[in-house]
Amino acid sequence: MPATETKMEITFEDVQRAAERIRPIAHRTPVMKSHTFDAQSGTESFFKCENLQKGGAFKIRGASNFVLSIPKEDLSRGVVAYSSGNHAQAVAIAAEIVGAPATLVMPEDAPRSKMDATRAHGARIITYDRFTEDRVELGKSVAAENNATIVPPFDHPWTIAGAGTTALELMEQEPELDALVIPIGGGGLISGSSIAAKHLRPGIRVFGVEPSDGNDTYLSFLSGKRTEIPAPQTIADGLRSPMPGELTFPIIRRNVEQIVLISEDEIRAAVRFLLMRMKILVEPSGAVSAAAVLFGKLPPKLGRVGIILSGGNVDYEQLARF
Amino acid sequence: MPATETKMEITFEDVQRAAERIRPIAHRTPVMKSHTFDAQSGTESFFKCENLQKGGAFKIRGASNFVLSIPKEDLSRGVVAYSSGNHAQAVAIAAEIVGAPATLVMPEDAPRSKMDATRAHGARIITYDRFTEDRVELGKSVAAENNATIVPPFDHPWTIAGAGTTALELMEQEPELDALVIPIGGGGLISGSSIAAKHLRPGIRVFGVEPSDGNDTYLSFLSGKRTEIPAPQTIADGLRSPMPGELTFPIIRRNVEQIVLISEDEIRAAVRFLLMRMKILVEPSGAVSAAAVLFGKLPPKLGRVGIILSGGNVDYEQLARF
Repeated sequence: MPATETKMEITFEDVQRAAERIRPIAHRTPVMKSHTFDAQSGTESFFKCENLQKGGAFKIRGASNFVLSIPKEDLSRGVVAYSSGNHAQAVAIAAEIVGAPATLVMPEDAPRSKMDATRAHGARIITYDRFTEDRVELGKSVAAENNATIVPPFDHPWTIAGAGTTALELMEQEPELDALVIPIGGGGLISGSSIAAKHLRPGIRVFGVEPSDGNDTYLSFLSGKRTEIPAPQTIADGLRSPMPGELTFPIIRRNVEQIVLISEDEIRAAVRFLLMRMKILVEPSGAVSAAAVLFGKLPPKLGRVGIILSGGNVDYEQLARF
Repeated sequence: MPATETKMEITFEDVQRAAERIRPIAHRTPVMKSHTFDAQSGTESFFKCENLQKGGAFKIRGASNFVLSIPKEDLSRGVVAYSSGNHAQAVAIAAEIVGAPATLVMPEDAPRSKMDATRAHGARIITYDRFTEDRVELGKSVAAENNATIVPPFDHPWTIAGAGTTALELMEQEPELDALVIPIGGGGLISGSSIAAKHLRPGIRVFGVEPSDGNDTYLSFLSGKRTEIPAPQTIADGLRSPMPGELTFPIIRRNVEQIVLISEDEIRAAVRFLLMRMKILVEPSGAVSAAAVLFGKLPPKLGRVGIILSGGNVDYEQLARF
């Protein structure tokens, strides 16, 4: 697994290089405004629409930066990823583009749409029980079979630098932002994004958002050390990671001002608002950031707020239940 | 009702002036692309996202152009509109902005979301039975009470010129389009848009789309004269107009190459595709254009196709039924 033999410090230049590298693959997603949202939340907000990203989520940024960084001789032995869905789909897309065989280890209760989309890109899927099996161990043993490269969902410099291109791009589009509000799963998106944002605008305030039932980073942030929680059940299936990453957590501690928690009902209300008022489909995990602003969880008078909507992959059945 | 005393010929310059006039009110909506849609339809398509327009539909363009064209002394006596929803909401928004009292005559089975949104802009709503009452007569009698101005939903030069700014704007954003595909209700959007498009690019091919259960313009187009059909029941509630307009029909005959029909199932499938694959909410009326391309109803090899998604206002209950 040569991909792990790399430097562990992530710089702004790494994010810039990632942006160059992934340009042929990832979309430059639009930034939306909503007068109704601003009026209702008392903010001036800018939505970075990663729900409109290729594969339906920001994950293609980290996955393609990673896959494109793997030495050619290793690539032919394939890539392996474990993921609740969006990362798996992103790795499948990136692997398909570079012509590498991909195997994805996905929880058996992952949204069907995500499994189908992953399969459509020619990847092999292996499922596991999220409550009894360890996906990391399973991923490792699958990778060992073919000496394939594991593409970590968040805790790797290449993944983090790729995810950070989200904020880099947003700040090219809206350079005067005063704050960023970002969902936290394993912490790849917020750590990479905070590196880019703080470099470009040192005074920018970065806020993280987690579901109350998935508060591992919140607890870790309070106690100052990485804390593991039981497998979360939150509808925000992309934010069910039970513990922040070894690499992501120190970056979060350094760059993030506060982590706020959102209830399941607030997540649902935010998804509904984005859908019915703003006419865009955002998945529960991707909407926690909007929920935090809409429900006044953040300090007042933030100025111009960048809200990252991290993905839009929702099951039809899940949507119907809303 | 001074608004009807105006010239009946609509020119490209009228559309240009409308664009200037409504600039402070209407949004410049984005144009989206989708690789998946292109692959599945065998086209290169550009989506004009009027579902992201203020009020959730292109209707604000015609309504605000109309309201801003009313002489000041008439405006204080108020405006009246009859509409299945989007036009009503648009008139309410435009009237609120210019400070004119608005009364809306809406069918009692109009989507609740549209009624609520209309009421939120301070308008008075009067409902009627779509199958037994005549909304035009009702609108006239309501307007006569206060000597208010009726804002016609489509069959007026000011409304048509305003609606035409949709294509004017699209062709500024994508000047090299070879074809346009546009939903037809009363025909305001397609007639105004075809005037703008044909002026800018005389060779452009313009196609209209109607639900099979709402084929009044299709039948009129075939026979060469305006034909009235029984009140349609189609889920495309914005396209239930039973007859093309006196002004819109001759423009359609002159500028439109073909009108194609779409089944209710195809409409539903297009709404689902736009939602689940492209992550945008488009109402059934707004999705018939996408359905026509997706289901191969148009001639092959159209080149670069502009698809107008005319609105995004869907009831929650309606969406859940999909």
